[in-house]
Amino acid sequence: MNWLERQVHSQPDAVALYFEESSWTWAQLEIRVRRMAAALTHSVQVAGGIRGARIATLMHSSPDYIVTILAVQWAGATLVPINTRLTAREISWMLNNIEADLLVLDHQTAERFYDSADATLDLQTTRFVQVEELTFSLDVEPADFRAREAALIMYTSGTTGLPKPVELSWENVASSAFASAVVLGLEARDNWLCALPLFHIGGLSIVFRCLIYGIPLTLLEKFDEQRVADAIIKHNITLASFVPTMLHRLRGILPEVNHLRAVLLGGGPAPKELVEWAWESGIPVFQTYGLTEAGSQVTTMPPKRALEKIGSAGIAVFGADVQVRRLNMSLAAPNEPGHIWIRGSMVMRGYLGRATENERRFDGSWFDTGDFGYLDDDQFLWVLSRRDDLIITGGENVYPAEVENVILAFEGVDQAAVFGQEDGTWGELVCVALVAKDGVELDLEALEAHCRKNLAGFKVPRRWLVLEELPQTSSGKVRRHELKKL
Amino acid sequence: MNWLERQVHSQPDAVALYFEESSWTWAQLEIRVRRMAAALTHSVQVAGGIRGARIATLMHSSPDYIVTILAVQWAGATLVPINTRLTAREISWMLNNIEADLLVLDHQTAERFYDSADATLDLQTTRFVQVEELTFSLDVEPADFRAREAALIMYTSGTTGLPKPVELSWENVASSAFASAVVLGLEARDNWLCALPLFHIGGLSIVFRCLIYGIPLTLLEKFDEQRVADAIIKHNITLASFVPTMLHRLRGILPEVNHLRAVLLGGGPAPKELVEWAWESGIPVFQTYGLTEAGSQVTTMPPKRALEKIGSAGIAVFGADVQVRRLNMSLAAPNEPGHIWIRGSMVMRGYLGRATENERRFDGSWFDTGDFGYLDDDQFLWVLSRRDDLIITGGENVYPAEVENVILAFEGVDQAAVFGQEDGTWGELVCVALVAKDGVELDLEALEAHCRKNLAGFKVPRRWLVLEELPQTSSGKVRRHELKKL
Repeated sequence: MNWLERQVHSQPDAVALYFEESSWTWAQLEIRVRRMAAALTHSVQVAGGIRGARIATLMHSSPDYIVTILAVQWAGATLVPINTRLTAREISWMLNNIEADLLVLDHQTAERFYDSADATLDLQTTRFVQVEELTFSLDVEPADFRAREAALIMYTSGTTGLPKPVELSWENVASSAFASAVVLGLEARDNWLCALPLFHIGGLSIVFRCLIYGIPLTLLEKFDEQRVADAIIKHNITLASFVPTMLHRLRGILPEVNHLRAVLLGGGPAPKELVEWAWESGIPVFQTYGLTEAGSQVTTMPPKRALEKIGSAGIAVFGADVQVRRLNMSLAAPNEPGHIWIRGSMVMRGYLGRATENERRFDGSWFDTGDFGYLDDDQFLWVLSRRDDLIITGGENVYPAEVENVILAFEGVDQAAVFGQEDGTWGELVCVALVAKDGVELDLEALEAHCRKNLAGFKVPRRWLVLEELPQTSSGKVRRHELKKL
Repeated sequence: MNWLERQVHSQPDAVALYFEESSWTWAQLEIRVRRMAAALTHSVQVAGGIRGARIATLMHSSPDYIVTILAVQWAGATLVPINTRLTAREISWMLNNIEADLLVLDHQTAERFYDSADATLDLQTTRFVQVEELTFSLDVEPADFRAREAALIMYTSGTTGLPKPVELSWENVASSAFASAVVLGLEARDNWLCALPLFHIGGLSIVFRCLIYGIPLTLLEKFDEQRVADAIIKHNITLASFVPTMLHRLRGILPEVNHLRAVLLGGGPAPKELVEWAWESGIPVFQTYGLTEAGSQVTTMPPKRALEKIGSAGIAVFGADVQVRRLNMSLAAPNEPGHIWIRGSMVMRGYLGRATENERRFDGSWFDTGDFGYLDDDQFLWVLSRRDDLIITGGENVYPAEVENVILAFEGVDQAAVFGQEDGTWGELVCVALVAKDGVELDLEALEAHCRKNLAGFKVPRRWLVLEELPQTSSGKVRRHELKKL
């Protein structure tokens, strides 16, 4: 049975969604979803119909976005959520690369990417519609989707090369939801607060969990510490997901008396001091380790050992396995750092159409996350760093290679190394060390403008360092860790 | 990660099992399981070792049985639980049919089937051991079992032919556990009472659910209303599974003040009046429809519609689909009775080595349960009769549950079982066996008039049998076949 349909039959009058001053029951949501599915079906003008079509969304968090997500499932299509902070160039590349059949915009993104003179999307086969302009007069029955079909395609950027499309099946999504429920429990009073963007797996997975569990989702348009604090009280929030920067900003603002029974903390290693503060303040924080390739959580802190293991990301969730391997692929000993490998029912089958990358990253069903860490004597995972040089700033992943590629395209730049530097507010700040071509005086203002034009704002370096040469290892790799000290 | 290992790392000191006056934590259970797995590994003398071996159990509910079940998983073998009430001939046939590698007995079954002169098992390839005599000195690491491997083989009896082996994978078991958690929720305080035999799917599935969820299992050697009532208070039981007869026997005995938050009621249609009594007495009863072939629950009553839909078995659980079909395989209309077909992630791939039967019962991934019922306008399933129980009289279908509900509404009737008896003229005759309430002399003429008033003529029983008690199976179901002989 369609997941939404199940909830409509099980509890038609229970609240499914809270947003600002409004709420929708499951039955009310269904009416909107049926019509949205009909509108999407009408808009997708491909030979095979909407079944299995790729429907991209470029939207800000809103009830319309939730309805669109559910309507894509209802119609038996595949959702391709796009990060709204990307540039027209980046978005066009993705949509053309995945051959999206339809792009759903909202009025903000339509204004920016369609009506704008200098940031128009350059789409090859993708039609587009603006969600507010879709007419909702028709009505369709839910498609008979199957567990192993593609639910989502989400792009993830690697350290090298272009963004890669991660395809997750409905089975992956459901396994992840189950794994999370087993750790956190599932109570009739639950209400999950989502202040994370819906175009990242961390936010999107909350939508599907609420749908599967049959609990209300409280959606915020975006993270704002005061609104989060207000929503927690107003809606008796019991579950919430934050990245460390958000939790940091909630200090002193989070109400002391609340119904929170579990706060998931993901999106990169959290400062130990932050987690300690949370527990001292009565906020039950459970660190997790997750990635898009695994539909979010792979490890989570089990509640009964949270205080004893602060700083760890917990143990493998139900259905998942974690290994730490040496470079020669042998298993690392307990407490010995190495590469984090994972497998499980929530892990993607592979990057779509990236045979070489898949061959490099998979060993049977084991997937090389590229992250570093160790397993302690109790099988608890301690993540030391995400990928080699991944920068996490304000919860967003910035991969140096991508930024470097843009900078290196600027005239006069000879070498560039992007790295992160610790920052109290953002977690890390994006920094770059540059070497100019012989005799060239770099115009940093023009270079920054070039970056702004070609990169999402959060990827643009905040600190610029011009050097005579970059510190290198004997094999010629830039020593990024040395740059951090400069 | 092995399921037990996960709990040991997550909460080593939490209680995993209560039995009589004793309890075991997850860490204590692990020590016993490691050693039992070593003992089983030693006992299975097959070429390939214990991995994938078929280990049959012929045991009464006890901590040893729980340890054996977990040890079989730990060792990466397949469990074949055998009904202790079968005869030596029946058991021998099953073990030889499935080519079990090892049979684990307890002292009671060893005495009966091994030391006995007249009921000895006649085994071809199966070695056997008595669980109390296994030495527990060694220790083994858990096997790396995978989701799609065989977890269990359980025999199910049809109306015709020989018992058929149902093979369930770990994925089937986990899907079933997830589906149940989504309906019932999962709270940190949960404690599941098991008074059902462990050799039936209803009891065994509780063991795996507690293992997956990480909640304690309170095991009773057998159903006894006073012990059940005592255990519910003593262990703050929140979840329990009963068949209707058990719930009936708990009337007047179940303590009014308790922590029960969900009582699953399976094993055939429940009298509407019993469910009504339960809710009036503050017992939150949720009817389910399940079968061995689907690792137990396929539909369950969603809590929010329980009162509104008393008598229904609820809607398809998460991951399952239910269809009602006509004999020509077309879909029945809402409220039109027909054959119940199911599919989903908890449904077996097929009967082991029964190609003809599988061909007959499967239509793609859809499985013909052989049971009768209808789906109402809200997709709620109403089971009219289990496979064996349908009565066809003069070409008309009579569903025992419907007739029983009418009879039970008559004053003075305590229990009723409707069944068919072969008849030259009508094919089958509708018959009923009755148990009167204590000290009541039933007025059968008035009862028959009551039936005539509330039922179509062909549904009114032709033969009336008043008994002291109804014959029951080990799982508490009425043995209708025995009634036919009376």
